[in-house]
Amino acid sequence: MAETPSLIDSEVFLAFSTYATVVVLKMMLMSPMTAYFRFTRKCFANMEDTGMAKTPEDKKRMLRVDPDVERVRRCHQNDLENIIPFVVIGLLYTLTGPDLSTALLHFRVFVGSRLFHTVAYVLPLPQPSRGLAWMVGMGATFSMAYRVLILGTLYL
Amino acid sequence: MAETPSLIDSEVFLAFSTYATVVVLKMMLMSPMTAYFRFTRKCFANMEDTGMAKTPEDKKRMLRVDPDVERVRRCHQNDLENIIPFVVIGLLYTLTGPDLSTALLHFRVFVGSRLFHTVAYVLPLPQPSRGLAWMVGMGATFSMAYRVLILGTLYL
Amino acid sequence: MAETPSLIDSEVFLAFSTYATVVVLKMMLMSPMTAYFRFTRKCFANMEDTGMAKTPEDKKRMLRVDPDVERVRRCHQNDLENIIPFVVIGLLYTLTGPDLSTALLHFRVFVGSRLFHTVAYVLPLPQPSRGLAWMVGMGATFSMAYRVLILGTLYL
Repeated sequence: MAETPSLIDSEVFLAFSTYATVVVLKMMLMSPMTAYFRFTRKCFANMEDTGMAKTPEDKKRMLRVDPDVERVRRCHQNDLENIIPFVVIGLLYTLTGPDLSTALLHFRVFVGSRLFHTVAYVLPLPQPSRGLAWMVGMGATFSMAYRVLILGTLYL
Repeated sequence: MAETPSLIDSEVFLAFSTYATVVVLKMMLMSPMTAYFRFTRKCFANMEDTGMAKTPEDKKRMLRVDPDVERVRRCHQNDLENIIPFVVIGLLYTLTGPDLSTALLHFRVFVGSRLFHTVAYVLPLPQPSRGLAWMVGMGATFSMAYRVLILGTLYL
Repeated sequence: MAETPSLIDSEVFLAFSTYATVVVLKMMLMSPMTAYFRFTRKCFANMEDTGMAKTPEDKKRMLRVDPDVERVRRCHQNDLENIIPFVVIGLLYTLTGPDLSTALLHFRVFVGSRLFHTVAYVLPLPQPSRGLAWMVGMGATFSMAYRVLILGTLYL
């Protein structure tokens, strides 16, 4: 049932598949991390989530904003804002047929910068570590977008 | 103009197209739902949206946070955090050439779990219904990611 | 290394690549715009970002919510909620082999509506300019989703 040999035979595409999946899985892991902080900090957003409380006052107290939970949520939001564009532009870039070594460089720099970004955000590390990680990731995506646009601007 | 026969002839790809479109449309419908609650609750985020108010005091009163609006927005955010990863990993999974029946099982479990998640979040249903729906959806995406990684880890 | 001739030779696909990249880049530029407003308004979300402050009181004062920053962030969030669905459904639509002129119409209307939406949100322009831009963009995506579903519902 492997009807798509042209794509799946491409080494660049297999590399993109793997890096995109790794970085999207990393993004998805922010959800359980948020849940972990919500349970350990006893801090929830919905009344129906406060089942562990014994009294109505306890329930109300659990409906609050906790700085640790908010930090993880901001990191998750930053992932959405950066990793999704990488996946979209990275896929289009992959289909332009770049050299494997150039493509791998882009994918590795991006994924590495986002792994470091998460560590720098959650611990947190002192600035500008988080800011630099964010910029490096943006740069890798911009560099791939440049190639896509060069090959496609005839069709604007 | 059908220059892409290899993809479009694949039954798995057509199934993925359909399920991905259905679940992305479901996600998009959270926007009009938010608008509906904003108008019925008269609760807005921008001063220029309060045109229905007659006095400046009314305008200011409309710039508030409403629990029903926030609930729909949290559901929308959870969709972004879960449905986008499904679409990305599901597309890569589709291109690995899985069996149609296995692929359909993944797509149906995911889409079903997200439809139930929305109902459980908006009504709301008592926990753990929403939490279980979220976990089932995550599980379907992780299972597809596993196959993508197995086939691609040579290229990390 | 151009192993994917079927896709890359398609004019519709090249047009989609270009418009999708342009509108995703536009979305990414909301991040530096948020950073710009955070620095000029001296308003941050993380304690480690307030390095420019001289006293601990200054640091605390910088951890606040600023209406201009929040406006840009809401615009960014609206982009995530609308541009990502366009990219997903637009890619699937492209693979259904539509006419180039019809496809270009959809892509141009969507990208134009989102560029106008950003201007209308950030300045801001009086309503209903932002609301209409949002609806036009949704309409273009729904129209593409309709074609994808017509061709794929056999596989639900």
